[in-house]
Amino acid sequence: MRLTGHNYIAGETSAEGSEVFYSIDPRTKKADDLPFHNATKAEVDRAVAAAVSAFDAMRNYSSARIADFLDEVAAQIEALGDDLLETADRETGLGLPRLNIERPRTTGQIRSFAALLREGDYLRAIINTAGPGQPTIRQMQFPIGPVAIFGASNFPFAFAVPGGDTASALAAGCPVVVKAHPGHPATSELFAQAMSAAARAQGFPAGAFSMVQGNSIESGQWLVANDGIEAVGFTGSLRGGRAIFDAAAARPRPIPVFAEMGSVNPVVITQSALAARADSIASDLVGSITMGTGQFCTNPGLILLEDSGLSQDFIASVTEKMTAAPAGVLLNEAIVSGLENAVNQTKANPHIQILTGGDAMADSDYFCFRNTVMQTSAAAIRADDRLQVEHFGPVTLFVTCEDMDDLRATVDALEGNLTSTVHAEEGELENINELLHQLREKAGRVIWNGFPTGVAVVPAMHHGGPYPATTAPGTTSVGTNAIYRFMRPIAFQNVPDALLPDALQDANPLGITRLVDGVNTAGAI
Amino acid sequence: MRLTGHNYIAGETSAEGSEVFYSIDPRTKKADDLPFHNATKAEVDRAVAAAVSAFDAMRNYSSARIADFLDEVAAQIEALGDDLLETADRETGLGLPRLNIERPRTTGQIRSFAALLREGDYLRAIINTAGPGQPTIRQMQFPIGPVAIFGASNFPFAFAVPGGDTASALAAGCPVVVKAHPGHPATSELFAQAMSAAARAQGFPAGAFSMVQGNSIESGQWLVANDGIEAVGFTGSLRGGRAIFDAAAARPRPIPVFAEMGSVNPVVITQSALAARADSIASDLVGSITMGTGQFCTNPGLILLEDSGLSQDFIASVTEKMTAAPAGVLLNEAIVSGLENAVNQTKANPHIQILTGGDAMADSDYFCFRNTVMQTSAAAIRADDRLQVEHFGPVTLFVTCEDMDDLRATVDALEGNLTSTVHAEEGELENINELLHQLREKAGRVIWNGFPTGVAVVPAMHHGGPYPATTAPGTTSVGTNAIYRFMRPIAFQNVPDALLPDALQDANPLGITRLVDGVNTAGAI
Repeated sequence: MRLTGHNYIAGETSAEGSEVFYSIDPRTKKADDLPFHNATKAEVDRAVAAAVSAFDAMRNYSSARIADFLDEVAAQIEALGDDLLETADRETGLGLPRLNIERPRTTGQIRSFAALLREGDYLRAIINTAGPGQPTIRQMQFPIGPVAIFGASNFPFAFAVPGGDTASALAAGCPVVVKAHPGHPATSELFAQAMSAAARAQGFPAGAFSMVQGNSIESGQWLVANDGIEAVGFTGSLRGGRAIFDAAAARPRPIPVFAEMGSVNPVVITQSALAARADSIASDLVGSITMGTGQFCTNPGLILLEDSGLSQDFIASVTEKMTAAPAGVLLNEAIVSGLENAVNQTKANPHIQILTGGDAMADSDYFCFRNTVMQTSAAAIRADDRLQVEHFGPVTLFVTCEDMDDLRATVDALEGNLTSTVHAEEGELENINELLHQLREKAGRVIWNGFPTGVAVVPAMHHGGPYPATTAPGTTSVGTNAIYRFMRPIAFQNVPDALLPDALQDANPLGITRLVDGVNTAGAI
Repeated sequence: MRLTGHNYIAGETSAEGSEVFYSIDPRTKKADDLPFHNATKAEVDRAVAAAVSAFDAMRNYSSARIADFLDEVAAQIEALGDDLLETADRETGLGLPRLNIERPRTTGQIRSFAALLREGDYLRAIINTAGPGQPTIRQMQFPIGPVAIFGASNFPFAFAVPGGDTASALAAGCPVVVKAHPGHPATSELFAQAMSAAARAQGFPAGAFSMVQGNSIESGQWLVANDGIEAVGFTGSLRGGRAIFDAAAARPRPIPVFAEMGSVNPVVITQSALAARADSIASDLVGSITMGTGQFCTNPGLILLEDSGLSQDFIASVTEKMTAAPAGVLLNEAIVSGLENAVNQTKANPHIQILTGGDAMADSDYFCFRNTVMQTSAAAIRADDRLQVEHFGPVTLFVTCEDMDDLRATVDALEGNLTSTVHAEEGELENINELLHQLREKAGRVIWNGFPTGVAVVPAMHHGGPYPATTAPGTTSVGTNAIYRFMRPIAFQNVPDALLPDALQDANPLGITRLVDGVNTAGAI
C-alpha cells in the first residue's frame, strides 16, 4: 500500500492543512521523509458530519450485517501483510515478535465481536407483556451514535486505530471517527486504508469510518466538541484523558467519555511468599516491569511489603536484575520526557531513595530511560498522593511497611487502579482475606500469585477501575462487554410488531434469548 | 412519629446549623411552625464519613442480607401509616388518591429489588476457566461505594428519600446519603425515621443511611464535592442536575452522575389518527397534560402535527378542554416561578401564539399556573432551540408542520427526551416506520397510541434518554436495571476459591446463573 500522509475522511484522502509532522524511528531518533498533515477543523467537522449521516443508515443495520463488516475489517488488516509489521516496528521499536502477537490479538478481538453479534443475546432484549392496566413494554440495546476514538501509542494495533475501542463501537453499530496517535502515523494510515476498504467492500456508508491525523491537541478538541459526537473512547495518559473528559463535560450537551488512563497497579507480597519463592517472584517481577520497556498500563509500579531482612534481600535482588537488564527502546520522545518528569517529581520527595537508574540517558542514540527502582516508606506515600503518580516505563517503587496494619492502612490510601495483586501462600488465606478484598476496592481486576501485565481477551476479563484508572468505573475496554459503552437501552410501549426491530418481535425471528415476563427464553411470545 | 426538624446523620438526629426553613402548604401558601435545620458542612461531612465506614462492612454483605434490609425498609414505610399520607398531602398538595397510589409503588419498587437480589442472577457472574497460557478469570458486579441521592419534589415517595434511586443504591450494597428536597421536609423526615429504624432492626451499620435537609444549594454541593462519595443519583430540573453534574466532573477525582432531568416528550399525531379518533385523543391528551397538575417529567409538552383543518379543530378542542379544566395546585413557589420564567422565555419568541393561559394567577391563594396551550410553527422551533425548554406544569406547545417532510425535519432537530410518542393508524404503518425510528433516536422510550405519563415499573421499562433528559443515556432510573448505576464489575484472576465471593466459587453455592466458558449454567464448575 502507498502511504500518503493524508487524513481519511469518509473514504477519501484529504490534506487541507499546512501543518505537518513526521514518523520518527525510536531506535535512531530519525524522522522519515513523508509529511503527515494535521487535520484542519473543517476536515474534523466533515468527518463527523459524514458519521452523522452514516448513522442514519447504520442504526437500522442488522447484527449479522455488522458482523460481516467486522470480519471484512479483520481480513483487510491481515491483507496488509508484513508491510504492517515492518511499518509499526520502525515507528514504535516494539519489535516484530511482540507485533506478531499483537496483530492476531487485534483481529481476534474484532472477530470476537462479530461472533457476539451473530449469537445475538448481547442485545439484552427484555419484554413484559400487557397485564391489567399495564402496556406491553419491550427494550433492547441500540447504538448510541457517532463515536470519537483516541488511539494509544503503546499498542499500535490492539488499542489504536483498529483496536478494542474502535471494534466495540463499530460492533455496537456506531460510526467511528478515530484521532490517530501521532507516535505511529504510518501504521495508522495503513489501518485507515484497511478500514475504508472494508466499508467499501461491505457497502457500508463511507462515513462509517474516518481517521484524522494530528500531533497537537487541537484536532482532538475539535472532535470532542463537535455536537455530532455522542460518546468518546480514549486510551492514554491521565493528562490527555482528563483533558478530553473535561472538554466533553463542558459541552452544552455533555457526552460520556470512556477513558482508560494511568495506573500504578499495586502488588502486595507477603513474607511467607518471599520465604517460599523470592527468587522466582523477583525474576517474574522484573520481567513484568521491563516487558515492552515497561510501557503497559498494567505495569507493576508499586510494590508493597513488610520491612524485614527477607524484604531487603528481595529488593536488592530486584534492583540487581533491573540494573543488569538492558535499557529497552521507548516509543517516542513524549514518553521519555513524560517519564523523566514523573520520576523527577517523585525524586523530589525527600523520602524517596533511588536504588538504581532514575534518569533518561540523554546521550543515548535511541529513546530510552534507565531501568529504575525506587524505595520509600508507607508513611511517606500516605503523606503525599503525588507518590502514586504513574511512571510509564521500566520503573517501579517499593513501599516498605512496618507491619501488616501499616500495609493495610497504605492500601486504604491508594487511588483507583486497573489491577491489584497479592502474592501469598495457601497457608495464610485466612489472614489475607480482608486485605485481598480491600485491594478489590482499589482496582478493576485482582490477581493472585501472578503479574498484572497480560490482559486475557475473554468475556470474564474486566479492564477498568476507579478514577484515575478510568473515567467510567462501571465499564471495560477489553472483552465483549466493552460494546455496552456505546449502546443504550430504548423501550417500546405497545408498538405494533411490524414496527419493531426483529429482536423484539413476538415471533423472535432471530431466535435470541430474551427475558420475557421474568423468564429467559429463546422462544416466541 | 414525632417530627424534629433535624438532619439524620448515621441514625442520630443533628441540628447544628442556625439556618432554618419551613414546610409550606401549597394549598394555602402558609408555613408550618416547625423549623427544619439546613445541614452544615460538618454534618454533611459526618454523614459521608459514616457512609464510608459503613461501606467497609456492607461491601461484603450477601445479597440475601441486603434483601432482608430492603424488605424491612418497605415494612417500616408501611408502619408510618396514614401520618405519611397526610403529611405529604399537606406539603405537596398532590392529594390522597394520588399518594395512595404512590406509596405502594414505592414499597413495591423496594421489594422488587429485594426479589432481584434473592434471585441472584443480577450479579452477572462470568467465568472463563484456565486454558493453555490463560489464567482463570471470574467477574461479577460489586457495589461502587457511598452514593449521594437528590430527591425530587414531584414524587415525594417514589423519586424521593425512599425512591428508586435510594432503593437501587442500597440494593447494590451502597450506603446512601440523601439530600432531601426542601419542598417536603416533614415527609422526608418520616422516611428518614423509617430508614434509620430499618437499619437498626437489621443490624446494618448506622452510616448505611443518612439524610440531610437544606433549602439552599450549599449542602448539595458539599455532598457532591466530598471525596467519600463515589456516585450521584439525581431527579429534578435541568438546571439543578447540570450544576451537580458540573460539580462532580470538576472534582479532583470525578465521579459518575446519574441525573434524570428535563424533557418535553414530543408527541406526533398523524392526520389519519385525528380522522379516526380526534375526540378521544384530545380528552386523553388533556388528561395527560393536567395529571398531577402537569408535574411529571413525562408530561407531553410538545405536540407535532401537520397543519390542516383537522389539526386546527383538534388544537381548538384541546384548548377548550384546557381552558375548562380547573387550575390545579402546584407543589411550591419554586415550581411556579420556574414555570413562569420558562413560559415567559417562550412567549418572548415572536412566533409563539398563546391559545389559552400563559400566566401564574398571582392573586391566587394557592400555588398555581393557568392551564396553558401555545402554538408555533415547525420552522420557528427549528430556528430556536430555546423553544424546546421544559415547561414543568400544565402547559403544552403545538407545533404545526407544513407536511410530513417538515415534521420529520423538526423531529431531527429535537433534543434528547425521556419519551417520544406516535399516534397513527394500523393502515399507515409502512409510512410511519422511518418516523418512529427517527423518534427512537431522540428518546429512551417510544410509545404507540398512548401517552407518556405513567411509567410501568417492570424490568423492560427504560426511564432515561439522551441529554438533557439525563446525563447518562445508557442507564435507567426506573426498573431493576437501575441497580447497575451503582455497581461496577471486578475480575479475579487465579484467586483461590476460599477467597472468592460465594457467587464466583467453583461450587456455585448460590445456585445462580453464570456465563461459564460461554455457556449460561446454574451448575458448579
